[in-house]
Amino acid sequence: MIVILKQNVKPEQVATFCRELESMGFQINDSKGSDTHILGLIGDTKALSESWLLANPIVDSCRRVSEPYKKANRKFHPDDTVVDVSGVKIGGGNFAVMAGPCSVESEAQIVEVARRVQKSGASLLRGGAFKPRTSPYSFQGLRAEGLELLSKARAATGQPIVTELMSSEHIPLFLQEKVDMIQIGARNMQNFELLKAVGRTNVPVLLKRGLSATLEELVMSAEYIMAEGNPNVVLCERGIRTFETSMRNTLDLAAVPMLKKMTHLPVVIDPSHAAGIAFMVPSLAAAAVAVGADGLMIEVHNDPKNAKSDGAQSLTPDQFDELMDVIRPELEFFGKKLN
Amino acid sequence: MIVILKQNVKPEQVATFCRELESMGFQINDSKGSDTHILGLIGDTKALSESWLLANPIVDSCRRVSEPYKKANRKFHPDDTVVDVSGVKIGGGNFAVMAGPCSVESEAQIVEVARRVQKSGASLLRGGAFKPRTSPYSFQGLRAEGLELLSKARAATGQPIVTELMSSEHIPLFLQEKVDMIQIGARNMQNFELLKAVGRTNVPVLLKRGLSATLEELVMSAEYIMAEGNPNVVLCERGIRTFETSMRNTLDLAAVPMLKKMTHLPVVIDPSHAAGIAFMVPSLAAAAVAVGADGLMIEVHNDPKNAKSDGAQSLTPDQFDELMDVIRPELEFFGKKLN
Amino acid sequence: MIVILKQNVKPEQVATFCRELESMGFQINDSKGSDTHILGLIGDTKALSESWLLANPIVDSCRRVSEPYKKANRKFHPDDTVVDVSGVKIGGGNFAVMAGPCSVESEAQIVEVARRVQKSGASLLRGGAFKPRTSPYSFQGLRAEGLELLSKARAATGQPIVTELMSSEHIPLFLQEKVDMIQIGARNMQNFELLKAVGRTNVPVLLKRGLSATLEELVMSAEYIMAEGNPNVVLCERGIRTFETSMRNTLDLAAVPMLKKMTHLPVVIDPSHAAGIAFMVPSLAAAAVAVGADGLMIEVHNDPKNAKSDGAQSLTPDQFDELMDVIRPELEFFGKKLN
Amino acid sequence: MIVILKQNVKPEQVATFCRELESMGFQINDSKGSDTHILGLIGDTKALSESWLLANPIVDSCRRVSEPYKKANRKFHPDDTVVDVSGVKIGGGNFAVMAGPCSVESEAQIVEVARRVQKSGASLLRGGAFKPRTSPYSFQGLRAEGLELLSKARAATGQPIVTELMSSEHIPLFLQEKVDMIQIGARNMQNFELLKAVGRTNVPVLLKRGLSATLEELVMSAEYIMAEGNPNVVLCERGIRTFETSMRNTLDLAAVPMLKKMTHLPVVIDPSHAAGIAFMVPSLAAAAVAVGADGLMIEVHNDPKNAKSDGAQSLTPDQFDELMDVIRPELEFFGKKLN
Repeated sequence: MIVILKQNVKPEQVATFCRELESMGFQINDSKGSDTHILGLIGDTKALSESWLLANPIVDSCRRVSEPYKKANRKFHPDDTVVDVSGVKIGGGNFAVMAGPCSVESEAQIVEVARRVQKSGASLLRGGAFKPRTSPYSFQGLRAEGLELLSKARAATGQPIVTELMSSEHIPLFLQEKVDMIQIGARNMQNFELLKAVGRTNVPVLLKRGLSATLEELVMSAEYIMAEGNPNVVLCERGIRTFETSMRNTLDLAAVPMLKKMTHLPVVIDPSHAAGIAFMVPSLAAAAVAVGADGLMIEVHNDPKNAKSDGAQSLTPDQFDELMDVIRPELEFFGKKLN
Repeated sequence: MIVILKQNVKPEQVATFCRELESMGFQINDSKGSDTHILGLIGDTKALSESWLLANPIVDSCRRVSEPYKKANRKFHPDDTVVDVSGVKIGGGNFAVMAGPCSVESEAQIVEVARRVQKSGASLLRGGAFKPRTSPYSFQGLRAEGLELLSKARAATGQPIVTELMSSEHIPLFLQEKVDMIQIGARNMQNFELLKAVGRTNVPVLLKRGLSATLEELVMSAEYIMAEGNPNVVLCERGIRTFETSMRNTLDLAAVPMLKKMTHLPVVIDPSHAAGIAFMVPSLAAAAVAVGADGLMIEVHNDPKNAKSDGAQSLTPDQFDELMDVIRPELEFFGKKLN
Repeated sequence: MIVILKQNVKPEQVATFCRELESMGFQINDSKGSDTHILGLIGDTKALSESWLLANPIVDSCRRVSEPYKKANRKFHPDDTVVDVSGVKIGGGNFAVMAGPCSVESEAQIVEVARRVQKSGASLLRGGAFKPRTSPYSFQGLRAEGLELLSKARAATGQPIVTELMSSEHIPLFLQEKVDMIQIGARNMQNFELLKAVGRTNVPVLLKRGLSATLEELVMSAEYIMAEGNPNVVLCERGIRTFETSMRNTLDLAAVPMLKKMTHLPVVIDPSHAAGIAFMVPSLAAAAVAVGADGLMIEVHNDPKNAKSDGAQSLTPDQFDELMDVIRPELEFFGKKLN
Repeated sequence: MIVILKQNVKPEQVATFCRELESMGFQINDSKGSDTHILGLIGDTKALSESWLLANPIVDSCRRVSEPYKKANRKFHPDDTVVDVSGVKIGGGNFAVMAGPCSVESEAQIVEVARRVQKSGASLLRGGAFKPRTSPYSFQGLRAEGLELLSKARAATGQPIVTELMSSEHIPLFLQEKVDMIQIGARNMQNFELLKAVGRTNVPVLLKRGLSATLEELVMSAEYIMAEGNPNVVLCERGIRTFETSMRNTLDLAAVPMLKKMTHLPVVIDPSHAAGIAFMVPSLAAAAVAVGADGLMIEVHNDPKNAKSDGAQSLTPDQFDELMDVIRPELEFFGKKLN
């Protein structure tokens, strides 16, 4: 941590401040230039709050120079983490496609979609039982019943399921239905009580980036889960909020190489939610493979026109099949293994 | 709702689509120009999903022309709502100042701050017991003990308390301690399960705008609470996330006149979290009064230099006193009543 | 400047790099911790490029700790600058209101508006002759003829005029018509050739913040003008681009206290362009006064309904008169002098 | 254009407004529902200003339903445009790589880089002579001398050159040196006088997207150039400004499929400026190919460590060679022709 002091601070004040910092275990490197007076803090600053430093009247500003995350930090864990979701591997050269409808709507629907996406090459079935919707008047999901229907679809195909958790009160239900991977949605990325709760399970977690979360904040949320004891975290970029209005969100594909530098965790891309428009999904999916992602999450619906949510961004099973026909050889081209 | 059809759509397809819409209870106004073919839907489109429309292959785009919120909509409720928090009125010409520390740290601290802010003219005591922190290694609040200390401070001064709720599991605790106003933090603005839960209580709610939430989304989250039966919602603008890096967030004061047009709910401003820097708080507070806000939320700490969180943005009791010395006559100038 | 080195860099590489930096005139403070190795550069880093540092393979990142601007920096010029626009003072306690139509449309229009805004208390007449429009099919302004009409309006009222310059090729025309203050529009804030050109005149400049310019970039653009020899720069915040869609831009009123800390230049607010909607202008103008601005720029049109541009955000002369009736006593309340 | 009227507007007012619109040549479709009253305008609304509509006191809001651009619109020009830059084709299945240093620094430097990038497979040489720099104290380019050196490099390799124009005053110089492609930089995307000036030449234009420009605004700027008679416009996405701070800008790769839907113009990607960090360039370039771009612009410097600008994002010639070794077969995989 670098602490920049205000101009014309008295030497006694600096001395007092340095003693306080030293008593907290830091070594101080004091550097005084013509215009600037800087203190370099040497030691573990992970738990040191910038706000605490800034509240001192002699401090002008401060800059963190080492990352505030540890368990998720690639520096201390150079090898790629491979997350195993009931046998499906994600990360470290293993690529996984999660596909399925935005919402689970009926047994017939989810089982049919499950069969179709499996046939096309998906390795996990996605489907929403609990649905976060902007409007209280929109369809809120089949909830507990939706989980049961996902289990039935899994029984039919053998594919692991990934579905969103919206409240820690539902965790017993998720464990009872043996959900293979728990999704934390973008709007709950900083619902810290929920992060801690899934951190206390050992179920793999798909952690979606918040609409306006920085990459560091995303990794800090992963750190919350890992700090509670659950190391099985997969990060998901799903579009961020910008000023652009022609599509729903702006897919930040550059997040992939940057996250791979910051952390050892796998990174998957959700092009369906990012653009919000089905015609853009195939080209964004191809770009996700090329940029180095470890997986894709794709919305597929047997009848998008009558979907209860997000039909506009859903592919039909046939369109998904065409997409996989591009992705499969492209993965081979880039040396990744499709699981 | 306006539905713009794609070019070269067959008349039969349009006819089928119109029949479907009519069967849902809408009247259709069909308008065909040289380049564009538009359907106007007349009726209650509140529960009609844009995504459902967009998923139809003949639809190019659609535009909502009436607001998707009803209970919070000023059109259907022209008078200002006045929310009563244990006797303190907010809205409709009544201005309330909520002040106190970011975190409750000890009985001595919270009682001292409570006494000081009351003396300066605050009407509610704020203080965090459950703290949402970006890092799992930061101070997470005194939690249940913090709520008890807030109760003690209330006993000492008689001022109602407002404090943040982070999980629906803590609601029984909040009711037991008789929290006067429940704060929903920015990061939980779209934690819909939590919104529904506080909607089922009758405790006044301070709903903070998410870091990247549009004003319409903020009002939709209020609608969630109101749709469950709790009409006592106060909106709070606390800075949005933009590209600017010289301060923590960008305070959107223009949100006040716009929200007042959209909704009848009171709107308060939190300049402390917006800027994140204490020296900016007084001028932003003065601007909030001038722009027409119904209240302020200000962080005050007896010893900011040693605050366990957000010291950099906290005023000392003396600074808060000076701020109130400006605000009081300014409110008079603008014809508002300080409660 | 703080330079953070990569992990596991060889001592010889560091030594070579330090010698290179020293040969450029910097003193080096070398600080090696357990995880981080930092070099502090002492000396004038204004012209030192961060990109040059980052291109060195042993450098991980770097942080500037002193501001990259000098002439505009309050540190080296603690007193407020007062800019004199043909007798109208702006800054240092002097408040100026610039009012007039978006576009000059005819002699009758501009003279009538000039008379009305003068009567209500404006001190400068604004009006566009050269208009930056998103569409090539929109009205592009009366151009040279518009400048002549502004001169005629000035002759009628005696008020100085401020109008936008879009190309350095038009400077001779602006000097010939004795334009009192040259406006650089938001879209040209980083048109560096244009900044240099107005820097070589001695005409006061109203420099508008770009739609997505940081405050530091705004000050750097002022520095361009000042570095060429023209110290008469007034900064103008006119709304920044964010994700919010209910109004045209987000007015960043917090820019005022922050710019006042960074620089000694006056700061004015343009609430008309910020919101883009007339009903919001009066409350935003009142907030601008309260937050500490040195002036306002307000669009006023004698017939907004038939304005050739930006009618939606223009006040009528009567509405402007009402606004000034609030602003005048409010300035008195806050101890400012209306010029 | 859809015009939504305010509530409780008098029939006479609507009738007057409709007559006015009809006199402008529009047909009106009048649609009155329970809560909303809408007018649909049928006819060419390209030159109709939304602000003019909104300034009418009976109008609540309006929504454009047909695009405000014509010459650049794919609807009226379904085939891909192929831009020919002195023999190098861009668009319609033709892929071009533009490579070279950020700044031209010396004859030896630019000729060496030109030879190396040509050998690796680049088809155009890029290099800055006039440099837009945030700070007036940074290297501003060799200017006229830089153009001469680019000509010399072209003489050495035969490759066309692309370089940035910052002021219309320099156009004669650009024509004299026979610059093959004129680049309009991001900061000048809405420098409308400059756009008109290059529109009056017949030199191909590389138009970079502004840091916070919407895709529609980018296309409108292309329309400015095309409306003056120059149809040879290539669009370039180079990163937009968002809240993310770990890299310089956020590369919006989804812009490619969306722009291809909106317009028939070629789209190229500049991953160097987007990320601002060399290690990210290869993966972003591969993603650009996969998403369907028509070209790449890549910064290559023979000695990035000593580059006078943007060294941090420059590849060495060897790194560029490796990148081309991936891009070449990838283009083949996706059925594109490398020129």
